[in-house]
Amino acid sequence: MTQATGHGAELAGLPPVDGKSNKRVLILGAGIAGLTAAYELGKLGFDCVVLEPRDIPGGRSMTIRKGDKITETTGHSQTCKFDEGQYYNPGPSRFPQWHVTMDYCRELGVEIQPFVNLNENAFYYGEGDIGPMAGKRHRIREVKTDLRGYTAELLAKVADDELLDTELSESDKEALIDFLHYEGGLSGSANEYKGHNRRGYKVWPGGGLQEGELDDPYQFSELLQSGFGNLFHRANEYQYQSQMFTPKGGMDKIPMALAEKVKDKIVYGAQVKEIRRTNPGARVVYTVDGADQEITGDYCICTIPPTILRRLQTDFSPMLKNTLNIVPFQNSGKIGMQFKRRFWEEDDRIFGGLSWTNLPIGEVWYPSSGFLDKKGVMGGYYVFGPMSDQLGRMSPEERTEFALSNGEKIHPQYRDEFENAFSVNWATIPHIEGCLAHFPQAMLKTFYPLLIKPEGELYLAASWASHLGGWQAGAFEAARIAVKNIHERTMAS
Amino acid sequence: MTQATGHGAELAGLPPVDGKSNKRVLILGAGIAGLTAAYELGKLGFDCVVLEPRDIPGGRSMTIRKGDKITETTGHSQTCKFDEGQYYNPGPSRFPQWHVTMDYCRELGVEIQPFVNLNENAFYYGEGDIGPMAGKRHRIREVKTDLRGYTAELLAKVADDELLDTELSESDKEALIDFLHYEGGLSGSANEYKGHNRRGYKVWPGGGLQEGELDDPYQFSELLQSGFGNLFHRANEYQYQSQMFTPKGGMDKIPMALAEKVKDKIVYGAQVKEIRRTNPGARVVYTVDGADQEITGDYCICTIPPTILRRLQTDFSPMLKNTLNIVPFQNSGKIGMQFKRRFWEEDDRIFGGLSWTNLPIGEVWYPSSGFLDKKGVMGGYYVFGPMSDQLGRMSPEERTEFALSNGEKIHPQYRDEFENAFSVNWATIPHIEGCLAHFPQAMLKTFYPLLIKPEGELYLAASWASHLGGWQAGAFEAARIAVKNIHERTMAS
Repeated sequence: MTQATGHGAELAGLPPVDGKSNKRVLILGAGIAGLTAAYELGKLGFDCVVLEPRDIPGGRSMTIRKGDKITETTGHSQTCKFDEGQYYNPGPSRFPQWHVTMDYCRELGVEIQPFVNLNENAFYYGEGDIGPMAGKRHRIREVKTDLRGYTAELLAKVADDELLDTELSESDKEALIDFLHYEGGLSGSANEYKGHNRRGYKVWPGGGLQEGELDDPYQFSELLQSGFGNLFHRANEYQYQSQMFTPKGGMDKIPMALAEKVKDKIVYGAQVKEIRRTNPGARVVYTVDGADQEITGDYCICTIPPTILRRLQTDFSPMLKNTLNIVPFQNSGKIGMQFKRRFWEEDDRIFGGLSWTNLPIGEVWYPSSGFLDKKGVMGGYYVFGPMSDQLGRMSPEERTEFALSNGEKIHPQYRDEFENAFSVNWATIPHIEGCLAHFPQAMLKTFYPLLIKPEGELYLAASWASHLGGWQAGAFEAARIAVKNIHERTMAS
Repeated sequence: MTQATGHGAELAGLPPVDGKSNKRVLILGAGIAGLTAAYELGKLGFDCVVLEPRDIPGGRSMTIRKGDKITETTGHSQTCKFDEGQYYNPGPSRFPQWHVTMDYCRELGVEIQPFVNLNENAFYYGEGDIGPMAGKRHRIREVKTDLRGYTAELLAKVADDELLDTELSESDKEALIDFLHYEGGLSGSANEYKGHNRRGYKVWPGGGLQEGELDDPYQFSELLQSGFGNLFHRANEYQYQSQMFTPKGGMDKIPMALAEKVKDKIVYGAQVKEIRRTNPGARVVYTVDGADQEITGDYCICTIPPTILRRLQTDFSPMLKNTLNIVPFQNSGKIGMQFKRRFWEEDDRIFGGLSWTNLPIGEVWYPSSGFLDKKGVMGGYYVFGPMSDQLGRMSPEERTEFALSNGEKIHPQYRDEFENAFSVNWATIPHIEGCLAHFPQAMLKTFYPLLIKPEGELYLAASWASHLGGWQAGAFEAARIAVKNIHERTMAS
């Protein structure tokens, strides 16, 4: 494993513990964190047992394919009707280049492909009090080119004004004007933005006399009122910058590859009831097929989501229990929709990427694979917190209708081309019951450190107990830190 | 074929000419234009003969693989030593979503994958009189975040100044400040740019207490002096915006698929000597294995590059001959370099994309395929005009040394990891002798129309005779226009 960017803990080169007495580590949960712990501990010579309540590994790193069935805790049940070969990632679906996830893909032989996070040809669509641009879809490239153009013009016009109180030299100011011309696509010595072909063409340039025909730019004022410019940053944030990646064939290729490495260590259908400290060590009571079982270990790494962990009998300290109660573990929901025809490619020439909207669906995702195929699965909504809770209370059919009735405002082809859908509401998925945590700054300094501090031989390891909430990389890193710590203690013992 | 954006000519739905006498079209050259003409004319019931001097189709749409051999007109000879499975596109290697190339990939069943044109993790590197940032590499994301931050700060500070003579309302001005905060990553009511995590981390956020550690931003003045900001637009221009694409396995998948459709019509090894008008019709003299042959047709579509066409015996009008002499058909050169190890991925975490430099190599390209593999082929330079002519005069070994000695300034791993290279200098590739034409505005209004006007039954069709110079789409479109015109004339006859 090369390039320790964001690793959390360097495990390369650690000596195996073979010389020590055979230490057993109980691992609760076979999601990314649990699987990684078992995999890395195994390399170091530890004996591991992974207890997983479901019959598949991966936790939220799931991929939905034809025939997959989920019954939610509310009783709502769905069986996936996608065509063979179609799939949807209802949990994590992309990662940036710097995540340790990339290194695990290399090590595990999981093939990756670019995930198109920014497609300038996709749309912004807004409704409500956003001025004249409301109720129509607008290409991202149009909005971006115009808004950057107008703001560059504005700054260029005052850049050499004495009132612009800067410490820039005359030659710096000239360089600034140059930059603004490039950045904004300005023309002439008056530094004016008059539209630019970066916003695309009404008739594109081509062969013969087809020189291309530009459309008029939007007005500065209507752009500002629309607020669309405040969405540019979404693809510029450090987690989302070009180029993002995703495994070929579905996100679950990662947990599947990990699970293959530790397959003899996983007990499926094992639901944890109690987590006890044995000073030193841990004892865990769990049920398999309705019968209680008990297992002891020298260490225990718990990856169970806080929503479920709160209900278990544990010997956690009151402080940790209290912290688990206030972890801001929130819901999220996504829907994969199979369409008869890739109208977004065929009609709108959008190959991958996202359209953003202030409609309650939030985002619409175009698949980053299967380009030019006949059919495809789009992401119809991606919602968090209260909005996802509201959707979670709906039946799958109602969620589909929600996605259709909103999405058809952006894509009028929706109703005609729709075939079937599969929605996942994480708060009602058995044994998961939630999705991700982002800690507010105040909690990061107070409660968060309590989450990640081992209690005796008990460790919590999960993405929701990392600085990478909601990312698989957080689970990888949290697991690696626990592994390193257990290794150190074992070597010192 | 759906979505007539930039088609040049709509051919869908044209009736076949079967009812008419059997018209023969002579097509000179089996590059994209010639193959497309034969393919589309074939669909319409025309009899076609394609004369191609080389023994492969595709022209500049070439892919270099193990064992491929090219002897340049200068006598320099290379045989490709890439490993099996590695490849390099020395000609076109990407296309935007709106190009008709995309439609042909769909129709021909050519699989495509994203081409990573912008990778924020790649580098800018400059030397010479560019201030304190010279001689070091800088991540694109760092430069972009800082420069956008400082300019947003500057504008935000004067946005509500009365001297900023705009027609923006008070609420527009507030919206502008909002936008600048998002766009520039500003903080506080003082609208200041103090660095931002969009520029990346020195230590990335991770598990446990690893909150992440930011680096200091660059200074505004040094950024302006560097001129790096004047390169942002390269990935924003309408031909280069996200998302670009490329065929899986190499660009020649497109001509190979086209050639398969018209394989009975292509005569390989056929070098044209004379192009004559027969009023109506055309007569072409060509040599095969040193022996002259002659063929007549009702129409002729010539795709021969102007550098070669100028030397042939033709019945073109003096005006067209004159125009052919001044077509700004320029050279370009590229080099594919195989490295033992994907150090750009392993060490620098750059997966695809380009680094830009003011070194004479211009650009460094990271492969958009084979991610996480052991070995890979990078693009070591991409040069045009005089610089490429200079490289063209060098031996292949000298070109490799040129790429290494420049490229190692950006990637110190170059020498250690280098295995072999293959360079293509288009001006000295037999039967091609040049690369692309971009017409200056003045010529577009005067000489360009003469190029695309048929002379009797003779048509020129090529990317260098289109508004898409240097793009395969230009060749597709030029061919489609000729096909449509010939079809119209035939139906009217």
